[in-house]
Formats: sequence, C-alpha cells, structure tokens
Amino acid sequence: MENLKKFAAELIGTFWLTFGGCGAAVLAAAFPEVGIGLLGVSLAFGLTVLTMAYAIGHVSGCHLNPAVTIGLAAGGRFPASGIAPYIVAQVAGAVLGALVLYVIASGAEGFDAAGGFAANGYGAHSPGGYSMTSAFLIEVVLTMMFLFIIMGTTHGRAPVGFAPLAIGLGLTLIHLISIPVTNTSVNPARSTGPALFAGGWAIGQLWMFWLAPIIGGALGGLLYSWLSPTPTEPVVGGIPSQG
Amino acid sequence: MENLKKFAAELIGTFWLTFGGCGAAVLAAAFPEVGIGLLGVSLAFGLTVLTMAYAIGHVSGCHLNPAVTIGLAAGGRFPASGIAPYIVAQVAGAVLGALVLYVIASGAEGFDAAGGFAANGYGAHSPGGYSMTSAFLIEVVLTMMFLFIIMGTTHGRAPVGFAPLAIGLGLTLIHLISIPVTNTSVNPARSTGPALFAGGWAIGQLWMFWLAPIIGGALGGLLYSWLSPTPTEPVVGGIPSQG
Amino acid sequence: MENLKKFAAELIGTFWLTFGGCGAAVLAAAFPEVGIGLLGVSLAFGLTVLTMAYAIGHVSGCHLNPAVTIGLAAGGRFPASGIAPYIVAQVAGAVLGALVLYVIASGAEGFDAAGGFAANGYGAHSPGGYSMTSAFLIEVVLTMMFLFIIMGTTHGRAPVGFAPLAIGLGLTLIHLISIPVTNTSVNPARSTGPALFAGGWAIGQLWMFWLAPIIGGALGGLLYSWLSPTPTEPVVGGIPSQG
Amino acid sequence: MENLKKFAAELIGTFWLTFGGCGAAVLAAAFPEVGIGLLGVSLAFGLTVLTMAYAIGHVSGCHLNPAVTIGLAAGGRFPASGIAPYIVAQVAGAVLGALVLYVIASGAEGFDAAGGFAANGYGAHSPGGYSMTSAFLIEVVLTMMFLFIIMGTTHGRAPVGFAPLAIGLGLTLIHLISIPVTNTSVNPARSTGPALFAGGWAIGQLWMFWLAPIIGGALGGLLYSWLSPTPTEPVVGGIPSQG
Repeated sequence: MENLKKFAAELIGTFWLTFGGCGAAVLAAAFPEVGIGLLGVSLAFGLTVLTMAYAIGHVSGCHLNPAVTIGLAAGGRFPASGIAPYIVAQVAGAVLGALVLYVIASGAEGFDAAGGFAANGYGAHSPGGYSMTSAFLIEVVLTMMFLFIIMGTTHGRAPVGFAPLAIGLGLTLIHLISIPVTNTSVNPARSTGPALFAGGWAIGQLWMFWLAPIIGGALGGLLYSWLSPTPTEPVVGGIPSQG
Repeated sequence: MENLKKFAAELIGTFWLTFGGCGAAVLAAAFPEVGIGLLGVSLAFGLTVLTMAYAIGHVSGCHLNPAVTIGLAAGGRFPASGIAPYIVAQVAGAVLGALVLYVIASGAEGFDAAGGFAANGYGAHSPGGYSMTSAFLIEVVLTMMFLFIIMGTTHGRAPVGFAPLAIGLGLTLIHLISIPVTNTSVNPARSTGPALFAGGWAIGQLWMFWLAPIIGGALGGLLYSWLSPTPTEPVVGGIPSQG
Repeated sequence: MENLKKFAAELIGTFWLTFGGCGAAVLAAAFPEVGIGLLGVSLAFGLTVLTMAYAIGHVSGCHLNPAVTIGLAAGGRFPASGIAPYIVAQVAGAVLGALVLYVIASGAEGFDAAGGFAANGYGAHSPGGYSMTSAFLIEVVLTMMFLFIIMGTTHGRAPVGFAPLAIGLGLTLIHLISIPVTNTSVNPARSTGPALFAGGWAIGQLWMFWLAPIIGGALGGLLYSWLSPTPTEPVVGGIPSQG
Repeated sequence: MENLKKFAAELIGTFWLTFGGCGAAVLAAAFPEVGIGLLGVSLAFGLTVLTMAYAIGHVSGCHLNPAVTIGLAAGGRFPASGIAPYIVAQVAGAVLGALVLYVIASGAEGFDAAGGFAANGYGAHSPGGYSMTSAFLIEVVLTMMFLFIIMGTTHGRAPVGFAPLAIGLGLTLIHLISIPVTNTSVNPARSTGPALFAGGWAIGQLWMFWLAPIIGGALGGLLYSWLSPTPTEPVVGGIPSQG
C-alpha cells in the first residue's frame, strides 16, 4: 500500500509536469500579442516540478522523470529494484497528461496535434533547425547537470527545504537554454506523452529522448557522488530517496 | 473577535488577489510595446497569494477562494461550519477589489468595463475561443491540482515555511496554462468581482466559474487526503487550517 | 557608531533600489526587439529590495523608503525618533543612485533625462494618461497594501526568513499593476532622485509621490496592527524593527 | 583531495554559469516571435548561480567568479592563498562552457561566433552603444553591489539558507540593468570563455572585464566588512568561506 501510494504520487506528478508544461506551450506560448513565449513555457515546466516537489516529495521523492530515477540510482540514492515501477508510473502519468491536454486543446478551431503538440525533435523537427548531433549533445549535458543539481541540493549538507525550489528553477533554466534546439526533453516520460498524439516523426525521433537523457542522468548521478559522497546519516528536507 | 479578524483577513486578502491580479490584466497586460502580457498577469495573480499567505496565513489560513475553503473541508483540514462565513468574506473582498479597480481604470480615456474587465468566459467569450466543454474541464482539472498542491505543501511532513511560495507560484503556473481558455478562474470569488462590472455575458457565464472550481477543489482535497493522510500532530508553517 | 551604520545601510540600500530599478527602466526596458519591458522593470525593483533585505535587514531593518519608515512607526514597530534620520539617509541614497545612473546613461547617444528618466507622474505625465485622482488613489492603496505585507510577513508568527522574499516580490507585484498609471512610486525617496534630473513637471508633481505613499503607508501599518497585534517577544528573521 | 574537489566544483559551476547564461543568450534570446529576450537571459544567468550555490555551496563556497573570490578575500572571508587556484579552475570551467556551447550552436545554419557569441564589449561593441567610461563605471558599481549582497546574505546574522536565492536573483537583477551597456560581465571568467571564440575585438576589450569587476568586487568586500564585521563564530548556511 505504501508502494502503491508512491506510484500514484509519481503518476499524478508526471501528469502535472506534462499537462502543465506542454499545456503552457500548446495553449499560451504563441497567443497573439500577449503570449507567454518560451520564457513563460520555461517557467511553467519549472513550476510543475517546484510545486510537486513540495507537495509529494515526502511521499515518493518526486522524480517525475525516468532519467532522474536512473540517475539517482547511479548516484547511490535510489534502489535499482525501484526503477521499473517508477518508470511505468511516470510514463502512464505523462500519457494521461497529454491526453487531457489533447481533449482541451481540441476545443478550439484550427487545432492540429500533428503540428507539433509540444513534442521533442531534432534536425528538421528542431524548432531552430539544430542537427542531431547538437540535439543529442545538449540533452546529455543538460540532463547531466540536472541530476548534478538534484544530487547536490538534496545532499545532507545543503540548506534544508530549498531543494524543490532549486530543482524546479533548474528545470526552468534548462528550458531557457534549449527549447530552440530540441523543444527540451531531459525527461523521456514527458517526451513520450505528446509524441503519441503528434505521431509520425515525433514517434520516429522518440528514441533519442530516451537515450540521451538517461545517459546524461547516469553521468550526473555518478559525477556528483564522486564530488561529494552521500552522508551516511539520513537525508533531511528536499527530495528524499526511497527507503 | 478572533473570528471577526479571520473574516477581515480573508476579505483583505481576496481584495488584494482580485485588485492585484485583475489590475495587472486590465491596466498593464496590453500596454503598448512594453506591456507585461499574459506572463506578467500570471505572475501578478501568483504574487497576490504568495504575499498574503506569508502575511495573513497565521491569521485566517489565507484561503482567499471559496473553492479552496470547500476543498480543504473536503480534505478534512477545515470545519464545515466555517465555510459559509469565509465565502461571504471572500466574495465581499473580491467585489471591493473590482470596485476600486473600476474607479482607477475609469481615470483613463477609452476605458470600457464592458470590454471584458478581466472577467472569465467560455465559448465566444473565451480569449482563445475554446468551447464550454474545454473550459469546464480545464477549470476542474486545474482547481483539483491547486488543492492537491495546497494540501501537500501544508502537510506536516512538507518543508516548513515554503507552502506560501509553492502555492503562490502554483497559481502563477495555472494562469500560464489557462488564460487563453477561460481567462483563468479556479476561484469563484475572483470571477464574481469583475463580472458585476463587465455585466451581460460575464454574469450569464458566472455559474460555470462557481461550479467547476468547487467540483475540482473538492476532488483535489479528497485525492490528496487519500494519498497522504493528515498527521494528527498540528500542522506547522505554511497555511494552517482553522482551529 | 551603531546608528551611523544603520544610516549608511539605508543610504546604500536606497541607492541600490533607485539605481537598479530606475536603471532597468532607463537602460533596458525599451531596448529594441529584446527589451525587458514593464515585466522586467517590475522584477528589477522587487529584486533590489529582496537582495538588500537579506543583506542588510539585520543592520537597519532595510526600509529604503520613507513611507515604510512612517508606516512601521504608525504600526508600532519603529520609534518615532528614528524617522527623520532614516528619511534623510534614504533620500540621499536615492539622489546618489539617480546621479550615477545619469552619468552612465549619458554615455550613449540620444539620451535625454528630460524625456522622463523613470520619474513618476500623473495626468499628462502618467504613462497611460491616468487622471490625478486615479494616480492618487492607486498610490494610497498600493502603499497601504505594501505596508500590510511588510507588517504581516515580519510578524513573529509568520514563517522565519521569508519576509525579504515576500516583500521584494510584493514590490514586483505592485509595479506589475501600476507602472502604466504613475510609473509606480509607493516610495517618496525613489521618486525624488530621478525627478531632480528630469526637472520641470517631474518636480512639480513630486508632492503627490510624497503625500500619497505616506498616507497609504500609515494606513497599512495601522490596519495590520489592528488585525494582528505585534507579539511582545522580539521579532526574529525578516525585517526587524530598530531597537 | 579535499582541495581537488573544491577546484572541480568551481570548474563545474563556472562551466554551468557560462554554458547556461551565454547559451540562453546565443540560442534563445532572439528566437523569432517567442524568444526569451534580455529578461530570459537575465533569469538564466541568475539561475545558474542559484542552482549551483544550493548544489555545491557546501563543497567550494560556489564563487564561480574571480571577482567574487578576490572580493571575499578583500572582505576577510577567504584566504589569499586560495585565490590563484580558484581563478584557474573558474577560467577553465568558463572556457569549457563556451567550447561546448560553440559545438552545439554550430549545429544550426547561419551560426557565426564572430557575430558576438555573448561576449562582453564597450563603445562600438556595447549592445546599446555606451561609451568606455559608462561601461567601466557600471561594471565597477554592479560588481561592488554584487559582493555587498554576497557578503551580507552569507553573514552569520542573515536568515539561514536564503543566500543562494538572494545571490542568484541578485545576478539576475544585475543583468536586467546592464545587458544593453556591456552585455553584463561582473565576472572575468564568464567574459573570457566566449571572447576566445568571438575573437578579434572581444579579446581586445577583455582587459576591462577583468579590471573593472575585480576593482568593484574588492570595493564591495571592503565596504560590507566595514558596515557589518564578520562574526567570529562560524558562518552557517549560504555560501561559506573556504576553511
């Protein structure tokens, strides 16, 4: 039952990340004259994580992202046995978020999910026309740094209670840098939800948004655990690891 | 006398939410060249709640919203007997906020409250032309998640003191997603104030902005209380429930 | 010597508020294509207070504003004997901030302080053409709420350490609402600095930006102290009052 | 080994500052229609510091900036013997950040690092055409205030844990004011990385972005240490000094 609630929390949280972040992109980014732009979308993605990390961090650790789960395992903060069910819950939440967004967005004339639906892409489907190499590299680097931030701000010697703030705003920063390159993934679950509705190329390019974030996440977890080993006393505040 | 001060705090706080959030929308959103846009309006709404939650959270709990009051009651954090007077105070504050805004906004040429005055709407009165179904669904989902965040960040196991930050920025996030759909309510009091001055269609559509947020709020309160029951020890920090 | 350092802290802090807030407005708000707009200016003003309140709150209380000093005195949090020297230090800092900004801004072709220099105005000199009545009313209301927030977030029962965050972002919110009406004062010192360099009408209208904020500030201090009296034990964290 | 990890932390952190801040500028600032603008770039620079200060503040103090290291030494918070290796690590990180950004940015058609690559400049190479005098003065003043904020928010009497928030957002504020003047340095390492790739004038003007920030940083460290001497008990929270 405890485990069921952890999975439910991951599902709800990843629903929120996908519905909120992609929702801001699809519904509000390019609204005429007063649209929120890429800055607003960046803020939205970050705030989904900030809000959930304070709300359910004490339930499931609030990973909301397969690359985070794997990166924390690589860094010695999460048991390998917990990876698979967490990822299942995260992907289910992301698909549900994309589905609800699809229903809502369909209620205005002229909507067409094939136009992108906030899916991630490279090459011809990179918003700014960046190559596959650039896309792969930036996803690895940014996910690596995302895990570095997560590992560091939840470290026992970091200020207590600020990790969700720093991690959420860290995701905002990552979007500020990279939306033009890949539409920003750093999260395979978030990439999978919209791709199912955008179809075609989005599904064809989905492999990269699983591979690159997972490589980057594992590297980030390993790098931080070398830099500053986890204390043996329990971690307090922020995003705890699963017991 | 203690109760009177709680009601006064809810009235002042909801005045601030309505005056500040709708004020930013009416006065500054579309200012030529340098207007704050929907991003600025989203930030303004969130900051009204962030500032008040730190200022009066310890007085009244800082609900500022009938859907929050009802959702907290559904989640077992607020006594049913307190609902009615809280809602009266909130609506009075919102109407006062809209009135003061009306007086100020009238001081510039060309102002016409019938042009919208930040009222909420759907269908022909949705900023982006979204259907009644889309509008209803997004208000239910967003208010549900808003209560989920409020219940979670004020839970006894969440980091102490950060709830007002997460709740305020959560309201910013909600606006980043949904202003194009309904002008964003998730708060029946906030919807009522401007509707009285916009008149006509705004009053005709007001029913939805009572019904959908209240349904969503109750669902969110129930969902979180299932996920993570309230500890029996008193909640510290953040937004306390009324004793 | 302790008092000298308090005055120095107020001078440096008000220098920063005026130089930083007005600097963002003069140098960056309307930069072609990528200017920060009124949203960026609002953020800049708020962040001057946020940064200083964390840096010198423990030295002088970080008022940086005659209306804050008078409002805190009205609310029973600051001794009347301290008002005059604080205001002298604040005005000196604001004039110094405007002077340094003037020297820097003069280093680009086409700069003319008579074009506004971020001075406050009403009627013909309101950015959006708002009447004197609207301008007076919004300055009273916003300064009243600013003091209400300051009194509340530094109250002994509010979460410790968050007051500078809430107060700084509260000033951002105030700017998001009211730049189109008066260019936003709520601070007589901030109004005085640029007016000396803009000259003419800016000096002629300066009386209002002393009168309205001081009335509002006193009202806010009184209102909050009625709502929630100051505890007799010392206030910890946030913006302490002068001993 | 402890020292090696401090240097590694400074290298990684300055990599992040340069890659993230300059990356947002190069990749996303002027993206058509929905670009993040100077406001988004300002936020990105600040968030690189906010995230790293929470993640590695407890490892190296998270200076990420030769002017910060020298300013903290001038203010009595850092040993002079530690200056040289910290600066070497910071410059190495900044060059690495610029290199990775160069590789990624090269993956889109039309990219040309000689077009600026987020390098700092004055006179003909100031974004807004500001003179060398204006540029020098603003870099001195802003770095002085940056150190003043760092010294103050990490002081033993400041609220615990908030220093990284205030320092990061302080850097955002500094960028909101000064990108049009110099593209904003206040950090010789951040200036050096992109200049190596932009070449030509950027290298020719690099001297100023070492000289002015270091003068300003030292002044800020001295000013704050006069205003509020460092307590003799150890500093807790925020950015600690090297032992």
